[in-house]
Amino acid sequence: MSNYEYNAALIGTGTIGLSFAALHLMTISASGGKTRVSIYDPRPQLKEYIDETLPGYLSNVWASTAQKASYATAPTVSSLLESGQLVLAETLAAAVKDADLVQEQGPENVAFKQKIWAEIEANAPISALFWTSTSGITASTQGALMLQPERLLVLHPFNPPHIMPLLELVTSTSGADKASTSGEKTEEDVLVQRTLAYWNSRGRQPVILRKEVTGFVANRLAMALLREAAYLVEQGVASAADIDRIVEQSLGPRWAVHGPFWSYHAGGGAGQGLGAFFDKIGGTVQACWDDAGKVNLGEGDWQERLVKQVEGAYGVLGESQLKDRDDKMKQILDVTMQ
Amino acid sequence: MSNYEYNAALIGTGTIGLSFAALHLMTISASGGKTRVSIYDPRPQLKEYIDETLPGYLSNVWASTAQKASYATAPTVSSLLESGQLVLAETLAAAVKDADLVQEQGPENVAFKQKIWAEIEANAPISALFWTSTSGITASTQGALMLQPERLLVLHPFNPPHIMPLLELVTSTSGADKASTSGEKTEEDVLVQRTLAYWNSRGRQPVILRKEVTGFVANRLAMALLREAAYLVEQGVASAADIDRIVEQSLGPRWAVHGPFWSYHAGGGAGQGLGAFFDKIGGTVQACWDDAGKVNLGEGDWQERLVKQVEGAYGVLGESQLKDRDDKMKQILDVTMQ
Repeated sequence: MSNYEYNAALIGTGTIGLSFAALHLMTISASGGKTRVSIYDPRPQLKEYIDETLPGYLSNVWASTAQKASYATAPTVSSLLESGQLVLAETLAAAVKDADLVQEQGPENVAFKQKIWAEIEANAPISALFWTSTSGITASTQGALMLQPERLLVLHPFNPPHIMPLLELVTSTSGADKASTSGEKTEEDVLVQRTLAYWNSRGRQPVILRKEVTGFVANRLAMALLREAAYLVEQGVASAADIDRIVEQSLGPRWAVHGPFWSYHAGGGAGQGLGAFFDKIGGTVQACWDDAGKVNLGEGDWQERLVKQVEGAYGVLGESQLKDRDDKMKQILDVTMQ
Repeated sequence: MSNYEYNAALIGTGTIGLSFAALHLMTISASGGKTRVSIYDPRPQLKEYIDETLPGYLSNVWASTAQKASYATAPTVSSLLESGQLVLAETLAAAVKDADLVQEQGPENVAFKQKIWAEIEANAPISALFWTSTSGITASTQGALMLQPERLLVLHPFNPPHIMPLLELVTSTSGADKASTSGEKTEEDVLVQRTLAYWNSRGRQPVILRKEVTGFVANRLAMALLREAAYLVEQGVASAADIDRIVEQSLGPRWAVHGPFWSYHAGGGAGQGLGAFFDKIGGTVQACWDDAGKVNLGEGDWQERLVKQVEGAYGVLGESQLKDRDDKMKQILDVTMQ
C-alpha cells in the first residue's frame, strides 16, 4: 500500500507545471497526507531539466507555505526521487496509470489538448480527477475526443500558482441544464467536491465559475484592461512604462485589498454604496466606455511597436527581478489574505 | 510676511478635498516650508463639518507620512485655525486672493466647473497654479469660460489621495502643437514644472499624460475592467463577490507590484518577453477581446440588479471597513513603493 494519500500525475512541466509540482510535493492535508507526483514531459533531457529548475520552486514553496510536508528544509530532487515521492515517468500511460489526479499544463493548442485528454482518459483509473491548467481553452472543447468529456475540469491558476492563491474551477457543463437536475447530485458535482476537498485541505479555496466562457474570468478582466492600456500607448497618451506606474500607484494596491465591486461600493465613503457611485460619476463611467479603444492582434503594427517600447523600457527581465516580484507579492498576500 | 511657503486654496471638501487638505497641512518641503490652507465650501455648517471630519484625515496622514510638518502628534483643527495655518473662507474670492495654488474638487458637472474656474481666475493672483481633481472632465472643457484656459491643469488623484501615490497631471494642450514650439519653453511647461516641484518636494511623482483624453488613464483602465466584470455578472458567469475574490487573489497583488506591461513582459519567465507572451497565448488574448461584453448605463436593468447584488453581498460599508482597507493599502505601498 502506498505511503501517499494522493497520486498526482503532472503532464507538462513549464513554469506552471513546476510550480504545481512543488505545491503538490510540499503541502500536506489536514490529516498529514502527502501527495506523490509522477511527471510526464516529452522534452529531451527531462532529468537534467528537473534537476536544474525544480529546486528553486521547492525552496520557494517551502519558504512560503505554512503547511510544509514535514521537511526541516526544502528537500532535494534526488531525495524525492529516491524516496519515490517524485517519479519521472517514461510514458504518459505510466504517469497516469495509478493517478488520483491528473493535472495538465501543455501547450495552449486545441489539437494537442484534445488528443492528450483522450489518451489520459484511456490510461488513467476511472476515478481519477482530470484538471487542465489552460489559460483559455474550455473543458468542453478540450474534451471533444473523450468518452466522458464531463470528467474534465478546468482548474485555471494564476502565474505563479505556488504564490497566487487563485484557482478558477470550471466544468464543461457549468450552468447547463442545472435547473432540470435540481436536487440530484450529478457526477460532475462529485468531481467538483473532490477537487475542492483536495485544495481546501491545502489552504486554497478555488472559485467556481457558473458558466464556461472563453478565457474564464481573471484573464478576461486582465485582457479588457490590457486592451485599453495598449490602445492608450498606441494613441500616445502615455508610455507603457508610465501606464505601469499609474497602475502600480492606484488600481493594483486598491484591488489587492478589495476587488472592483467592493471598491466602488466603498467609493463614496462610509454609508454610501455602488448605487451612489453610479449616480455621482456615472457620466464619467459611460464616457470612458464610449471612448474606449480597440486594438486587435495582427491588425496594424501597434503590437511590434508596443513590444519594442516595453523591451526598451525594461530590457530582458532576469531571475533576480522575478524573485523580487515574487517576494513582494508574497508580502502583499500576507497582508491581504489573513 | 507669511510664515508659509505656499498658500493653498481648496475649493470643495468632500472626501478628496479633505484628504488633500490634510496632505497640504501635514507635509513640508525639503527646506521645511509649510503650506497654509484656505478652504472654501458653500455647504451649511462648514465649521462643524470640518471639526468632525478633518481630524481623521489629519491623524491618518500624520501616521503615514514621513515628512510631517514638525508636529509631535497630529494637530487639532482648532490649533490649526488659531495658528492661521487653516482658514475657513467666507467667499470664494477670499479663499483664492493670496493663493499660490488653487485646487478644486467640486461636483463632476461641466457647468459648475466652467463657472467656478472663471470665477477663480478673476480673483486669484496671476501667478497662482490651478489644479482640478476631476475624475474625467478635461481641462479644456472646464476652462471654456476662462480668459487663459491653458492655466488650468488636471491633477487627478486616486481615492484616497492621502494614501494613494498616484497623481495624473494633464494640461489642456497636452500634445497639441508641441512640435512647432520645440526648444521653446512654453507657459504651460512652466506651470507643469512648478506643479512637479511642489509635489516632488512632498514625495510625490505625478505622471504626466501626453494627450488629454476622457477619463485620463487610471479611470479608463479601471472602467474597461469594470465593464467586463459587470458583463460577466450579468451573464451569470460569476457573482460580484466571486469576481472581487478573483481579482484580490490574482490581478490585484500582481499589479500592485508591477503594472500590466511589465507583468506580461515577465509572463513567460526569465529571458522571455512581451513578444513571446503574444506568440504563446495571443490566441487566448484575441479570443477574450472578441468575446468581451458591453454594458451601458441606462440600457436594460443590469445596473439595478448589480447594485442589489453588491448590497446583498456587502451590506452598508462602515468606517471600520474603510479604515481596515486604508491600513492594508498603506502596508502594501510600504512593500511596493520602496
